[in-house]
Amino acid sequence: MSKEIGITVKKSEDFSEWYTQVVIKAQLTDYAPVKGLIVLRPYGYSIWEFLKSSIDQKLKATGHENGFLPVLIPESLLSKETTHFAGFTPEVFWVTHSGDTEIGDRLALRPTSETLAYSMYSKWIKSWRDLPLKINFWNTALRAEIKSTKPFLRTSEFLWQEGHTVHTTKEEAEEEVMTILDIYRKTVEEELAIPVIVGKKSEKEKFVGAVYTTTMESIMPDGKALQMGTSHFLGQNFSKPFDVKFLDKQNVETFAWQTSWGVSWRLIGALIMVHGDDKGLVLPPRVAPIQAVIVPIYSSDSDKDAVLKKANEIGSSLSQRNLRVHVDSRNEFTPGYKFNDWEMKGVPLRVEIGPKDLAKSKVVLVRRDSLKKSDRSFDQIEDGIVKALDEIQADLYEKAKKILSERTKNIVNLDQFKKEIEKGMFVYSPWCGDQKCEETIKEDTGADIRVIPFDVKVSNAPCIVCGSPSKTEAVFARGY
Amino acid sequence: MSKEIGITVKKSEDFSEWYTQVVIKAQLTDYAPVKGLIVLRPYGYSIWEFLKSSIDQKLKATGHENGFLPVLIPESLLSKETTHFAGFTPEVFWVTHSGDTEIGDRLALRPTSETLAYSMYSKWIKSWRDLPLKINFWNTALRAEIKSTKPFLRTSEFLWQEGHTVHTTKEEAEEEVMTILDIYRKTVEEELAIPVIVGKKSEKEKFVGAVYTTTMESIMPDGKALQMGTSHFLGQNFSKPFDVKFLDKQNVETFAWQTSWGVSWRLIGALIMVHGDDKGLVLPPRVAPIQAVIVPIYSSDSDKDAVLKKANEIGSSLSQRNLRVHVDSRNEFTPGYKFNDWEMKGVPLRVEIGPKDLAKSKVVLVRRDSLKKSDRSFDQIEDGIVKALDEIQADLYEKAKKILSERTKNIVNLDQFKKEIEKGMFVYSPWCGDQKCEETIKEDTGADIRVIPFDVKVSNAPCIVCGSPSKTEAVFARGY
Repeated sequence: MSKEIGITVKKSEDFSEWYTQVVIKAQLTDYAPVKGLIVLRPYGYSIWEFLKSSIDQKLKATGHENGFLPVLIPESLLSKETTHFAGFTPEVFWVTHSGDTEIGDRLALRPTSETLAYSMYSKWIKSWRDLPLKINFWNTALRAEIKSTKPFLRTSEFLWQEGHTVHTTKEEAEEEVMTILDIYRKTVEEELAIPVIVGKKSEKEKFVGAVYTTTMESIMPDGKALQMGTSHFLGQNFSKPFDVKFLDKQNVETFAWQTSWGVSWRLIGALIMVHGDDKGLVLPPRVAPIQAVIVPIYSSDSDKDAVLKKANEIGSSLSQRNLRVHVDSRNEFTPGYKFNDWEMKGVPLRVEIGPKDLAKSKVVLVRRDSLKKSDRSFDQIEDGIVKALDEIQADLYEKAKKILSERTKNIVNLDQFKKEIEKGMFVYSPWCGDQKCEETIKEDTGADIRVIPFDVKVSNAPCIVCGSPSKTEAVFARGY
Repeated sequence: MSKEIGITVKKSEDFSEWYTQVVIKAQLTDYAPVKGLIVLRPYGYSIWEFLKSSIDQKLKATGHENGFLPVLIPESLLSKETTHFAGFTPEVFWVTHSGDTEIGDRLALRPTSETLAYSMYSKWIKSWRDLPLKINFWNTALRAEIKSTKPFLRTSEFLWQEGHTVHTTKEEAEEEVMTILDIYRKTVEEELAIPVIVGKKSEKEKFVGAVYTTTMESIMPDGKALQMGTSHFLGQNFSKPFDVKFLDKQNVETFAWQTSWGVSWRLIGALIMVHGDDKGLVLPPRVAPIQAVIVPIYSSDSDKDAVLKKANEIGSSLSQRNLRVHVDSRNEFTPGYKFNDWEMKGVPLRVEIGPKDLAKSKVVLVRRDSLKKSDRSFDQIEDGIVKALDEIQADLYEKAKKILSERTKNIVNLDQFKKEIEKGMFVYSPWCGDQKCEETIKEDTGADIRVIPFDVKVSNAPCIVCGSPSKTEAVFARGY
């Protein structure tokens, strides 16, 4: 593989350039003609399909259904909840014409669908019999990015799901918020092999219009935190302006309690950053479009037939076990080229078979994550591959967990705090709860409160900024 | 069920009002705040999910992959193929601002993605090794409708899939066009139980920018033809302006051969029109979100426990056979209300169970299509339901086929032709191939050439309009 085809920089030396090369050269994505927009090539979209399917199954199992909302929202509707509108308006794309005709009430491309969904819900909900209403929408959101964009992490249109639910009681709505956050956490930890910290956002960082926002956060290898998904308790903040109310069992008209939540293809960005290495992508087996690639090795035509035959046989038997397997029988490339190609694309397991292997009735397995080689006799191939894939999935998670823990520090001293933030750490520090201290930290260090973990205790130490008694510990870091 | 809840007009008396009531009252869809746009409620979206899954499986089995394209296309790109652009420009939604900033090269909301896809393809394709490239996109298209809109049939944004393929030879591309048309035909006939006529569009009616368009057409109960899906041979019409070329095996740079094709949620509109009746929706079992609904019947509390227990038992055993079944155990509604409710929603099969049935170890099955009742003993329930669902699927198709055949006439005389068009027929007539005759017919009768079927012979009779020798038979009808 020539230099231009492979990844030409080290992850540890130029992280940003490394990331860009990986997403483009592994054929996950490409830049669209409009700045800030990307397309997904089939290899990238396929990862999204596995992620989507995993979340979709969990949502359906917990009583959610899917629906469809159009992309156009009239300005008059979008501006109905004023705080919400103010939060989004600088980044809204506006449609002003259809054909040559000017549109009176100009149309926003959905930055998020609370306003549209709830204007519909207010028509559909009449009594407690219609609740809970739990609808999810797989679509895209559009937010014009002014800052520098990055595939999957910051683009002006992104694939996501947005869920919008309505409940008769506050308690039921708050339970829903946690059910969803748990679905997100499980998906990210079990499918993407990325450990996260779950908790609440601060008032400053919550979703515009929410009562509170729960979040899952992780830290990337460049020391920047990434918000991986959020689940919002909306209280009655939207049900009042949007008239989402119901007759309760006593026939009394009551405003409903609501939630909204979403994850996006940003999770693919996280996956790339967390697991990738100098050779390119490293995919966890559960979301890998190809879990094992079989590369036949031969130099003579007589070897070729026998080797290819066996490679195809192995391929078929693995497919029958529902493994996603590909036999790379391309004639125009050398085995070495193929090894590099599939390594860059992050296929978790390579199966090599040549004439010598054939003679010994075995294959060579090569793990993408560790690059370690081992033999498997023909009668052990299927079980061996299933086992190896499970091990890779588990090892990737453990490795990421170790990095998260190494990147996490408890700090009570402000000077120390600044040093650790500079090093790219997740810093647990005591906080008085005052937004002013949050703003001071942001100005001085560039760090935000990423999350107030559910499991932290009130610290005995005083607030890291002002020295007042602290109300909680919070996790600070610089973010994406 | 009160009059307002049920369908209040007969399908035969006010077809348009009947259709609108069915789509709204069966909770398939609702009108969005912007004129011409609709939302899909979960019941409607679920039908789309079954349709999508059926097509997606067939596409993947024939070597297609999915990708993602953004919704925004710069005007400069959209206008690159001039005929194509001229065809779409009157109905394009234009984005002119992001936030308060005016956008220089204004952005179109995708009316279709040929231009965007092929600008990407030209970067990705270098040699014959990269071909064929066969990518499908599940997204929406946006075309501002000026005429009166109708849910599923004519809306300014619609759910669809658009496939875009690239091939080394003309022959391979033309074969792809037919492969896709056959996937569409099978899906519509086997899943939606709607028979279609397949063939080519006339030059006048083909897709703007295509060499030729193949289509499947069916006739609706109001006598209007509906285009159900199209598959286009693009030749090199787009590969030349968009520079989609490859090095062939002799290392010669060659323009590629292309196809594009799509079906939309219009198919759901067809489904409603073809199978629905005065009570509402009638869903073919293969795409029904609920295939069988179990309604427990009881008047006393002692009966209730026993009946509900058995209803739930039957429900579980049917679910285990992968049937989509629902036990309607709502306490606040009478059995009569429930019968009407599920009939309106088109659930193919109702299973009634009351104390007398329990005593006789049997249930009552009621078919939605024929409303016929029959008993099944407990030990025959599962097989009985599977069999009944298969029969309903087959009977719906046969019934629709009979209607299509009754609505089809062979006519060689112009006066007769006009009468049959007026009656709402699919009219097979000889045609000289001249676009002028096509336009004359359109002006005089409102009928278009819907399709030139693949299997017609050249007629001996002269052209129905001008009397010149005919080149082919064509199917004429008024259309949606």
